Order: sequence, then C-alpha cells, then structure tokens
Amino acid sequence: MTQSQTRSIIDGQQGTLTIEDTGYVAGIDIGGTNLRLALGDMSGAVVAKWSCSTAGVRGADAVMALIGEGVEQLLRQVSAPRGALKAVAAGAPGVTDVDRGIVIATSYLMGWRDVPLRAMLEDALSAPAAVDNDVNLAAIGESWAGAAKGARDFVFLAIGTGIGSGIVLNGRPFRGTGWAAGEIGYMLVPGTPDAPCNQGEPGALESMIGGEGIRAQWQTVWDASKTALPRDMTATEIFDHALAGDSLAQTVLNESACMLSHAIYNMNLVLNCPLFVLGGGVGIHPGLCDATRKKLEERNMRARPQLTRSTLGSDAQLMGALKLALETAGSRSAVLASDGAERA
Amino acid sequence: MTQSQTRSIIDGQQGTLTIEDTGYVAGIDIGGTNLRLALGDMSGAVVAKWSCSTAGVRGADAVMALIGEGVEQLLRQVSAPRGALKAVAAGAPGVTDVDRGIVIATSYLMGWRDVPLRAMLEDALSAPAAVDNDVNLAAIGESWAGAAKGARDFVFLAIGTGIGSGIVLNGRPFRGTGWAAGEIGYMLVPGTPDAPCNQGEPGALESMIGGEGIRAQWQTVWDASKTALPRDMTATEIFDHALAGDSLAQTVLNESACMLSHAIYNMNLVLNCPLFVLGGGVGIHPGLCDATRKKLEERNMRARPQLTRSTLGSDAQLMGALKLALETAGSRSAVLASDGAERA
Repeated sequence: MTQSQTRSIIDGQQGTLTIEDTGYVAGIDIGGTNLRLALGDMSGAVVAKWSCSTAGVRGADAVMALIGEGVEQLLRQVSAPRGALKAVAAGAPGVTDVDRGIVIATSYLMGWRDVPLRAMLEDALSAPAAVDNDVNLAAIGESWAGAAKGARDFVFLAIGTGIGSGIVLNGRPFRGTGWAAGEIGYMLVPGTPDAPCNQGEPGALESMIGGEGIRAQWQTVWDASKTALPRDMTATEIFDHALAGDSLAQTVLNESACMLSHAIYNMNLVLNCPLFVLGGGVGIHPGLCDATRKKLEERNMRARPQLTRSTLGSDAQLMGALKLALETAGSRSAVLASDGAERA
Repeated sequence: MTQSQTRSIIDGQQGTLTIEDTGYVAGIDIGGTNLRLALGDMSGAVVAKWSCSTAGVRGADAVMALIGEGVEQLLRQVSAPRGALKAVAAGAPGVTDVDRGIVIATSYLMGWRDVPLRAMLEDALSAPAAVDNDVNLAAIGESWAGAAKGARDFVFLAIGTGIGSGIVLNGRPFRGTGWAAGEIGYMLVPGTPDAPCNQGEPGALESMIGGEGIRAQWQTVWDASKTALPRDMTATEIFDHALAGDSLAQTVLNESACMLSHAIYNMNLVLNCPLFVLGGGVGIHPGLCDATRKKLEERNMRARPQLTRSTLGSDAQLMGALKLALETAGSRSAVLASDGAERA
C-alpha cells in the first residue's frame, strides 16, 4: 500500500487511524415500507444507492436476503470484489442493544424480538457490522452532514407513522440504561389519552400526532359543510392544505403543533438541550415546524431551544448508517493494528 | 507532614490524591426557610452541625453573613483555627452555573439573579468553594450515602413547595447546556394547566402537586359533609389522613400520585433510567411513594424504573454539599501539587 493509498480518519474515541481507502462501506436503512442501501467510499462519499420495497416482508431472514442482494448489486455497480466491503451498519426501527448487536424489540409495525442483527449481517456479508436504532442513526446522520452539523447536544425528533427521538449529548448518542432513551411516542401531555396503552399499540403521543393520528384527527373534525376537502387525506396533505388556507386543516395543524410543542417543552425541561431537529415524513413538513416554533415562543422559557427541520430528509438514517459503518471500519482496523502490534 | 497525617482520597476525575487529613470541610444548604451547615472531617464524617432560620432573609449578602457566623461557630466547636477549613460547598435553590460559580436564578421563592456565590464564599471564608443547584447536591448526597448508593444512573425527584429533579448519568450530575436540566416543576402532563405560566410563578406540575398545589387540591374538593377533617391542612397532613382512612384525603393522594406517575413516566421515556428516588418534605411521604409506584405498575413499560424514597431525608442536600466540599478540597490539593511540580 503506497502512501497515496492511505488516508487519515478521525475517530472520536480512537484518535487518528490510518486505514486503506481502496475499500467501501455500506449503510443500511431497514424501514417498514422500504429497504435502502448506500455504498460509500472510505472518505464517506456516497458512490451508489439501492433500494427495494419491504411491503409484506417482515421476518429478519427475508430482510437479510434482500440486504445481501442489494450489497451484491452495489459492489457490482462499482466493479468491486466482495473483499472490498470493509464494514456495514444498519438501523432497525426498534430498541437496539448496540453492544451486543441485537434488536430487542421493534415498534408495533414490524414485530421483531431479540434479533441478532449484527451477527446475521456479519455472517451474510463477511464484513464487520454495527447496528443501532434507526432514529439514533438519523441523529448521527444530521450531526455528521445535516441540520445538526457541529452540534454537541441536540435532539432529533422523527415523526412518521410513529414518533421517536434520538438524543445526542456531548457529541454521542445517549441511549439510556435499557437502550430505550428517547422513546417519546408514549409521552403523556395535556390532550393525549392518559389510560395505559397495551404494548404493540401506538403510544399516547403518536396516537394523536403520528401520521395516522393526524389523519384520524382530521376525520374527527371533518364536516362537508366546513371544508371542500376530502375526508381521507394523509397528514402531509392536510398540512399542505392548511398552508394553502383551508381553515379546518389549519385547526388540525395547530392542534398537532400545540401537542408537539408540549412534548418538546417537556423534553427540554429534562435535558435542557439547545437544538431540536424535526425529521421523518410528517415531521419535516415546514408548516408543522413553523406552527410548533410559534407555540414554543408563547411559553416563558429560560433558554428556548432552537427548532429546525432536517436537511437530510429521508436520507438521514442512511447517512447515519454510513457514518457508523465508517467508524466500524476504522475501529476494526485499529483492533487489527493493535493485534498486530501485540504479536510483533 | 508525617505519613500518618496523610490519607488517600479517590476523586472520580483526578485519580488518587494525597491530602492532609487534619483539616475540615463544610457543606452548606441554603434553603427558603432554613440555612443548614455541616462540618466534616477529611474522611467525610460529620463532626458538627449548625442551622438557623432564614425567615425574612432573602438577600445574598445577608445569607453570607449567616454562613460566616455558622462556620465560625462550627470551627470553634471543634477547637480548630480558621486555616483548618480546607473547602466549602453550597447548594442554592436555583439554576446554578457550576463552572463560573454563579447562581443564575433562584426559584420564585427567593428571587436571586446572577449571584457570584462561589466568589462570595471564598472571600468570606478564605477557603476554596464550590456551588451547585440544591437538588443536584441532594442527588449527589443520595448517591454518596443514601438511597442511590452505587447507582450510576438515577433521578432524584424533590417535592417540597416546588418540584425539581437532579439527574445523575454515568455517575455524574447531568446539568444540561444552560445548567437547567431536570427543571420538571414546569412539566405538562394530562391534568396540569397547559396555558403558558409567567416566570416567577409556580410551574404547571408544581402548581398541582407541589406542597401548595396539594393543599389547594384539598381545599377544592373539601366538603364538610364528606370529611370530618379541617379545610386547611398541609400536604403531608392530608397524606397522613389518607393512610389513616379518610376517603376524601385518599382521593387527593391518588390524584397527586397519578400526576406524579405521569411525570416520572415521561422522564423515563426520555432518559430510560433504572431508579427514581423521591425526596423533599412532601416527596418523602411513604403514602405518596406507594401510591405512585402502583400507578406506574398499571402501565406497560419495557423497563419499569424502581421507585424508592430518600433515606437521607432533609439531610440529602447537606450531605451532597459535604461530598462536593471534599472533592473541592481534593482537586485544589491536586492543583497545588501540580503547581508545585511545575515549579520544581
């Protein structure tokens, strides 16, 4: 390996490492509707992408087969052999034991329990792997290349079908004792149901202002004499119509923003965090962000956090996975180097 | 100094330090009704205590004069000269910048703004000083010698007139970017008012289940035909009567426990923390702890945190201050030692 073939990668914990730059890493985003892969070079630049539908695909083995297919196609696209894959990282939609590489439980949408995802990836792809919760990875992505670039402390708050958050403290994901920190889809605020909900059902907050909750809110207030809009619309369609001037849609947007502002206010009371980034298919809507910011401005707060929208959008998780794959490649190189040093 | 006059103190950050054990440290708890001081030897054992009322005393200068008097009396009690005081630490009831030693703002009860408490203590007592928020110090106390002994991650939740919490993560107080983490007296949960409250007024949660809030709840439901108890009682008196069987008092206890369980549930969603310790004059009531634990048990939670009561009671803050004073003495010795090494 010539000098020009090496480059330095800074890793937060390990200091400066020297690793080959002739390889590739893959980031994997396992979602309820799509599986998305990105192949990056060792500088983190995306060189190819691949995706497929996961409609009807729920089992971890079936997902793993799709991942294998995707990685193979990506490597073929850049004419690289299997051995060029230096590491992979995947985000799963659920509580994930990062140390053991196990997805403990996914949300009510997928139903995984104690899936050894890291070992499955390493077996299938013959490369070092890392796994994390998808929202934590989105937070890592935003912090690496998005709206939270350079922020040491922030919360990434994802609103799609469900609601979750990734908390970054001192530049590192904060995961909690049981890997479940930031699971705020269950938060209780004024206006949410306060009766205990069953596991496997949406939480109190997401039942109101997750994508399905907003849709249901609209159907509850919908009245043909008050709006010309159809009774069945998605959350983002409702928000679009609110911005276009429909007053009934504005009511739903305002109520959603009010409840979201309560949740952010509560999180900020606990964490005293200067930045909240809204992401996810629903959370990224500009109307929701603006209305929520206004609600927060109405409150007396010692230090009002900045509220902004994700700049990576639906790529946030994928970029976070790529960053984690790069770190995994770096730390494995460090382990190999120190093994070599010990043997020498 | 002979070998027998030295002992080793382990400091979390600094490693093993050798400091004199012929000195003393003082812990100071500045409360809205009482000022309390404890003098400890260098092993942390309390050798003398002193307290006085702070009724009507609000200004920082007046409080400082009382502290000076207390320290003098304590040293006289153990026949020690002024120079024997190696360090002091004080807890103030408000948001405190620990790095700069400034009390940024106390709660609505005292009205301090940007008080340079550390410098004032060092000037008045000619000893190194440290300051922190009182609830953070109570958490440190419980973790050093109380209900959270050995716990790396826990929340100390104080309910007195107001409500606040001290969060310990990875064995260290977590303070937030603006020193205001854990200020949950303002939390919004089902049943609290959700209109913005003014600064200087009690927060949403403490307006309902702080000492005064519980008293007000009782007065709202009180009806001479439903109870033989008087219309004016303190929160702990109401809880005592609930345990003794008064059904109206039980209603108030249950509603308070329900709202407290919501707040703990929300904090746990954010932090995923295995232990919550209830303290403060109202929070330490066994009836409240038991009823709140039952409410938490009714909820489906992936990892239900343990809920327990403070074992240090009203000494928690004082013990935390003593621990911080010991650490301050240790770190100042380390600084002096390294200064010496540099000069040598």
